[in-house]
Amino acid sequence: MLYATHQLLGERGLAVYYVGIDLGGTNIVAGVLDEDYRMIGRAAIKTAMPRPAKEIIADMARAIVQATENAGVFLDNVDSIGIGTPGSVDRETGTVMYAGNLNFSNVRIVDEMRAILHKERIFLENDANAAAAGEYYAGHGRGKRSFMQITLGTGIGGGVISDGRMLIGFNGAGGELGHTVIVENGEQCTCGRKGCFEAYASATALIRQTKAAMMSDPASKMWEIAGGLDRVDGRTPFDAAGSGDPTAREVVKQYLRYVACGITNMINIFQPEVLCIGGGICNQGDNLLLPIKQMVSLENFARNCNRQTDIKISSLGNDAGIIGAALLCKLA
Amino acid sequence: MLYATHQLLGERGLAVYYVGIDLGGTNIVAGVLDEDYRMIGRAAIKTAMPRPAKEIIADMARAIVQATENAGVFLDNVDSIGIGTPGSVDRETGTVMYAGNLNFSNVRIVDEMRAILHKERIFLENDANAAAAGEYYAGHGRGKRSFMQITLGTGIGGGVISDGRMLIGFNGAGGELGHTVIVENGEQCTCGRKGCFEAYASATALIRQTKAAMMSDPASKMWEIAGGLDRVDGRTPFDAAGSGDPTAREVVKQYLRYVACGITNMINIFQPEVLCIGGGICNQGDNLLLPIKQMVSLENFARNCNRQTDIKISSLGNDAGIIGAALLCKLA
Repeated sequence: MLYATHQLLGERGLAVYYVGIDLGGTNIVAGVLDEDYRMIGRAAIKTAMPRPAKEIIADMARAIVQATENAGVFLDNVDSIGIGTPGSVDRETGTVMYAGNLNFSNVRIVDEMRAILHKERIFLENDANAAAAGEYYAGHGRGKRSFMQITLGTGIGGGVISDGRMLIGFNGAGGELGHTVIVENGEQCTCGRKGCFEAYASATALIRQTKAAMMSDPASKMWEIAGGLDRVDGRTPFDAAGSGDPTAREVVKQYLRYVACGITNMINIFQPEVLCIGGGICNQGDNLLLPIKQMVSLENFARNCNRQTDIKISSLGNDAGIIGAALLCKLA
Repeated sequence: MLYATHQLLGERGLAVYYVGIDLGGTNIVAGVLDEDYRMIGRAAIKTAMPRPAKEIIADMARAIVQATENAGVFLDNVDSIGIGTPGSVDRETGTVMYAGNLNFSNVRIVDEMRAILHKERIFLENDANAAAAGEYYAGHGRGKRSFMQITLGTGIGGGVISDGRMLIGFNGAGGELGHTVIVENGEQCTCGRKGCFEAYASATALIRQTKAAMMSDPASKMWEIAGGLDRVDGRTPFDAAGSGDPTAREVVKQYLRYVACGITNMINIFQPEVLCIGGGICNQGDNLLLPIKQMVSLENFARNCNRQTDIKISSLGNDAGIIGAALLCKLA
């Protein structure tokens, strides 16, 4: 009889699986992890904005079913489902309070998913925190007691986890590492403050800095490499610096100073065992990592300690969000 | 027989007491707390620098014995002893790694105290963290889940505690809130970085800013109020601003901007239930607190949340360090 039940559950029966969803403005991606946190199946559906929240949630459920089918896993064997969303969340009620690029306002996403999928254990988290959870449980944070992730993207997202607990603050709004001022009264930030880490060290900030430098130097190779001001991206100054352009070198040098400044701030506060840097800029590899490590090692308060924070580039890349969402159930 | 034992233990016998020491460059102060964390006895001995660590430690033990006598408590009834020290500590080995103003370097202070007092439970902590623990257990943090203290003194000390756990980082060097840059490439800080919160918002920084403003305005009332450049202290600009001096008002306004900038940074990261401001500057009361609350309420990331961090002035004043040292045993 036991054998028969096992057959019924399929080849992967009796084991436990975790499902994560990375809900983005462009794609809804669902992934299934096995007990070793390896991704064994996935599915993606276009978010296709603008459309009502109800339709998006229905497609999230569809993506989950497809991903489990692709993984050869029954939904009954899924321990829990985690959702990583942009914007601000209320974890207790499973509500997306506000997410601008999804046009979500007070969407009770967890209850609606429960109603469709008949699964009780559904967790909700901000996407930056979900990515940090992914790296903590399945990447460079594995087995470490304290960990933080800083993602240099359109904005700067962050997540701090120690002993399996995510830093969210008493009102759930904590962990906004990007919205710490590093240049008092500096560049306007989207959050309303002036001079935030995000306004100097995000990919968006790098693009702004690159364009300003190009405007001041019509002879810079960056013009040719980018193919015009509107086509500048985060790679432009790095590529031009690599080919010896002095203006680009200066842009990259100052940008890395800003990144190192914010990272040193975070290390002086948290002294995590591992700090991971994520985001598209990480494609620069050692061109990014080595100068930052060098600056941090000269400046951080614990520079004479035996034990120093290990700074690494995120190992999970774009999958961090899905993997982390799937593992939200592990957080204390 | 039980009665006789009780007599032997003295009037306060059978109860549990906590002893804390605030070890400073000028005074060694010991205090005894009862079970309600009230100070029921204290004693002070001059640190009388320079002299060897051994002598200072012997006087710390003497101060403890005197304080218990003043409290009418037997040392046997003391649950534990806590030591708050300047500088950096290794909590596990009970060692003061380095404390410049005590001329301590790798002093195994806990072992030496154990040998003199024959008490096993002796805890060691950095003085800023000890002060935070005091306010957390016996002041405005009582009963709160998450708490932080920022002390604006000669430097800026900080302590972050949530769920009874102090933020110290994996190497014990964390929680250096004062050594986070708020003005990239700004004023030189004692830590080696440029532009730290401490270099702009400590009492030392305020005095520097005040002197610079006086030099640029020979007609400022600050000259008369201070009685000379060498006699400027943290009260000078506040007193002069109160009497209508425009230059002093500008100094105070900009100083409060720096303080609010650093505090908003910390709130955006931690969103603690309560944030306490300590240090001598707190004597300014609402002249300090109200403008800071105003600026934080306009700028912090959670300004639209239902629940906001409550910003308060430390309730324990100079006793925070002794009380907190006594309660180090409570930390998880």
